Amino acid sequence: MITKPISNAPIGIFDSGLGGLTVLTSLENIFPNESFIYFGDTAHVPYGSKSADTVIRYSRNIVEFFQMYNTKAVVIACNTASAVAFEELRNSYDIPLFDVVSPSVVHSTKISKTRKIGVIGTQSTIYSRAYTRSIADINSDYLVNEIACPLFVPLIEEGWSDTRVAREVARIYLEPFKKTEIDTLILGCTHYPIMTKTIQRAVGNHVQLVYSGETVGKKLSTHFEKNKCKNDSKSSDKTKFYVTDFPQKFDELGSRFLGRKMGHIEQVSLS
Amino acid sequence: MITKPISNAPIGIFDSGLGGLTVLTSLENIFPNESFIYFGDTAHVPYGSKSADTVIRYSRNIVEFFQMYNTKAVVIACNTASAVAFEELRNSYDIPLFDVVSPSVVHSTKISKTRKIGVIGTQSTIYSRAYTRSIADINSDYLVNEIACPLFVPLIEEGWSDTRVAREVARIYLEPFKKTEIDTLILGCTHYPIMTKTIQRAVGNHVQLVYSGETVGKKLSTHFEKNKCKNDSKSSDKTKFYVTDFPQKFDELGSRFLGRKMGHIEQVSLS
Repeated sequence: MITKPISNAPIGIFDSGLGGLTVLTSLENIFPNESFIYFGDTAHVPYGSKSADTVIRYSRNIVEFFQMYNTKAVVIACNTASAVAFEELRNSYDIPLFDVVSPSVVHSTKISKTRKIGVIGTQSTIYSRAYTRSIADINSDYLVNEIACPLFVPLIEEGWSDTRVAREVARIYLEPFKKTEIDTLILGCTHYPIMTKTIQRAVGNHVQLVYSGETVGKKLSTHFEKNKCKNDSKSSDKTKFYVTDFPQKFDELGSRFLGRKMGHIEQVSLS
Repeated sequence: MITKPISNAPIGIFDSGLGGLTVLTSLENIFPNESFIYFGDTAHVPYGSKSADTVIRYSRNIVEFFQMYNTKAVVIACNTASAVAFEELRNSYDIPLFDVVSPSVVHSTKISKTRKIGVIGTQSTIYSRAYTRSIADINSDYLVNEIACPLFVPLIEEGWSDTRVAREVARIYLEPFKKTEIDTLILGCTHYPIMTKTIQRAVGNHVQLVYSGETVGKKLSTHFEKNKCKNDSKSSDKTKFYVTDFPQKFDELGSRFLGRKMGHIEQVSLS
């Protein structure tokens, strides 16, 4: 099935859970006229501890779900799925797909003056070395320093992003960056923008933080211009939310992520 | 199918992930002659964020897996599955099943002198009020104070159980107990025994900690005596480990939980 670019069709965004909501927030700000469908695969969260085959299978189901809604683009707002499933999905579907790794990588290599880039993420993202490999593909002159910060997601979900505990955890995790000359830090987990203040304080103001919501937004913008599929009408539909397990926790935490009430969240089964 | 009590048959223990390994450790110490099979449903961890129906379905698959090995007893070493699936499973299978909630509840009501009992666990366990209801079923005179400690599991899995950060988190979470007169605290999450020192320090030495590994061990012991199915031979088989997703992380963290190398871990698919 070939999906025609339809300017008023919605944009699909998916993640294993909540983190992708920070990407949604960025995209809603960048594209106020566009409509969005957010899919949180909460029955299978977190993807980080699953094998590549499993994550690819789940991601396929979601892309096929989006196809039913004729989405004009799909954003994989999950670092694990971006790292392990993006290529495979891109080769399987005609729908334009966007990952969250490569736009941040491209942007970082453009803005870093010291050519020393830091990356923080969950254990599985950092183990995958997806960012280091992706930066090396552009230019092998960059020095990349990756650090896993496994406690950041639970701290954020607990609502403790800007507490003394979070500042102490950030200080411990990010201490090694002080010995490097990084001037750019990629937030390699879609949860982390919620913790910006604490992260910025730990690394210092001379380090620029790179958010995937913003970088993928720029890439989408270019794509819409090129393919003439921006929404021209002045009104967009309210964002629709779908999850694969019961919506209560997603609703509670999600409202905190979005800074507004989420409205109706529909539970669906894809297996 | 009616499973005959066979004294040298293994005991099955399952959890969504690693936590149940603290129960395994207790049972290995209590029953040095028994053989064990440990099942970690790592493809579906954590159960806490899943609906009851989903957890029941996963648990059924595991009990049926244990049936193939003719286990003489199955321990549900997971608080979520104990709270939502135990009754349903007990009505469906002839295999003797043991949960981790009720033995700790019975033990606590026996040892508490102030009749004020604290319970700590993950958010889903505490939301379920399973401990409060279970204690009230025995005697409605007990005052039960339940507190969710969502950061304990990630702190333990990060290996930070006895750090300044963990002590600060424990101090914040457990502070409300200081205003009560609890003399007994149920560790309502199978991860928590790893963090004993920090938890004990936060609540004070006058509070007795109750571990489900020990309390379910006593219940198993009574069952084996009554049904004359203790293993009489002097040697037990090495514990066998099965998981449903790739075993690397389970192996790394599991060795820390057990305090020894885990040996071979087999990955199986139950769906």
